[in-house]
Amino acid sequence: MTEEKRKFRVEVCFSPDEFDLYKQEYSVVVAIDVLRATTAICTAFEHGAEKVIPVSTIEEAREYKDQGYMAGAERLGKIVDGFEFGNSPYSYMGDAVKNKTLVLTTTNGTRAINIAAETHKVIVGSLINLDAVIDYLIEQPDDVLLLASGWQGKFNLEDSICAGAITEALLASGKYMSDEDSTIASMFLYKEAKVSYFGFLKASSHRRRLRNLNLNEDIKYCLTPNQTRVIPVYRDGALVKM
Amino acid sequence: MTEEKRKFRVEVCFSPDEFDLYKQEYSVVVAIDVLRATTAICTAFEHGAEKVIPVSTIEEAREYKDQGYMAGAERLGKIVDGFEFGNSPYSYMGDAVKNKTLVLTTTNGTRAINIAAETHKVIVGSLINLDAVIDYLIEQPDDVLLLASGWQGKFNLEDSICAGAITEALLASGKYMSDEDSTIASMFLYKEAKVSYFGFLKASSHRRRLRNLNLNEDIKYCLTPNQTRVIPVYRDGALVKM
Repeated sequence: MTEEKRKFRVEVCFSPDEFDLYKQEYSVVVAIDVLRATTAICTAFEHGAEKVIPVSTIEEAREYKDQGYMAGAERLGKIVDGFEFGNSPYSYMGDAVKNKTLVLTTTNGTRAINIAAETHKVIVGSLINLDAVIDYLIEQPDDVLLLASGWQGKFNLEDSICAGAITEALLASGKYMSDEDSTIASMFLYKEAKVSYFGFLKASSHRRRLRNLNLNEDIKYCLTPNQTRVIPVYRDGALVKM
Repeated sequence: MTEEKRKFRVEVCFSPDEFDLYKQEYSVVVAIDVLRATTAICTAFEHGAEKVIPVSTIEEAREYKDQGYMAGAERLGKIVDGFEFGNSPYSYMGDAVKNKTLVLTTTNGTRAINIAAETHKVIVGSLINLDAVIDYLIEQPDDVLLLASGWQGKFNLEDSICAGAITEALLASGKYMSDEDSTIASMFLYKEAKVSYFGFLKASSHRRRLRNLNLNEDIKYCLTPNQTRVIPVYRDGALVKM
């Protein structure tokens, strides 16, 4: 008699607002905010940052800033008044971040990380560390929820596509199964998008929002897969490099 | 100087749980529960029902039943104990429903109708009255939210695909625009699905759920577009034929 190995589960949750509907069944959460928080966080670690503290409110970020931390704050795509950095990945490169502990608050991404970190192991995913996340989850399989940060609670395309890319690879490994319609939809959207993320996301409302803020360079960077192998993981109140 | 006509807006909300995030900007809500509540409701009107009272709880449905109403109650795909009907469209055909006032409570669909009816004009959409709904909205354009009933608060494929079909037709009319990523995603999913709803939805978790309950005939009926021209509309606590 052969014993069939249990497959692990990978599913997609479209927004932190829906996390309560999904969270019970998973051990690991991958927080995804392609445009731009989780991309910026991966960038900071690629450039030698030591820690990133994700905070949910501008007030918390300001307190850290007053204590001398390098603190970024973004709301609705713009740098918050009184801060020098928002969530542009280009702010988190080079010597400015090397060996530093950074603090970041953003509209969607840091919220997703903090909501999930209350109850789950959290790692940070984006397109720029896509294959690193996939390889890790295949190497150390577990029940995984891919948590899109969305846009102010709503579904967004770019995070769902990234989640679809991860899902497709995990299912192909043979170690995972999935069951939710949100997961199936993400894979279909990824299939449409993968020829050209940039072309596909022309239609995305968030990309349009950022384009109006002249952030096309940021967008190109965020939509270019596999620029780093770092995987940020949440431990004791901060993200660190795995 | 030519004056450009304002376009009306059509967007998709994936679940009644997200209705609060969307509801402010729309005048009309189309409640959609393809498998099977809104399909059953359209079927009842096609077969001459006079009214359908959608209620949110089993207790309310039971009270109506005790008063002699024909009352259906479904939870998780099954007929609730003590009721003769659930939400199978085949229960709402023929003389049984003619000129009757019916009462219905279901897991997802009647909930979506009632949540939206608190604040909005609500009409009932499904695949079986697809073109009727499209024609009506093109004829009397307005800011329209397509409210998918989802599955226990979560995204589902079949309602999103139906919403994508409506959206595509409304945008093609030139009278409508859309802006949300959920709407773009719905149209992509519809594009994938339209060759064969039945084939596409093999993967749907809800279809699998119903298949396990031997409801393949129901599913085929629910996924066959344009079997009726009726459009149920909510007025004074009940749905009536428009």
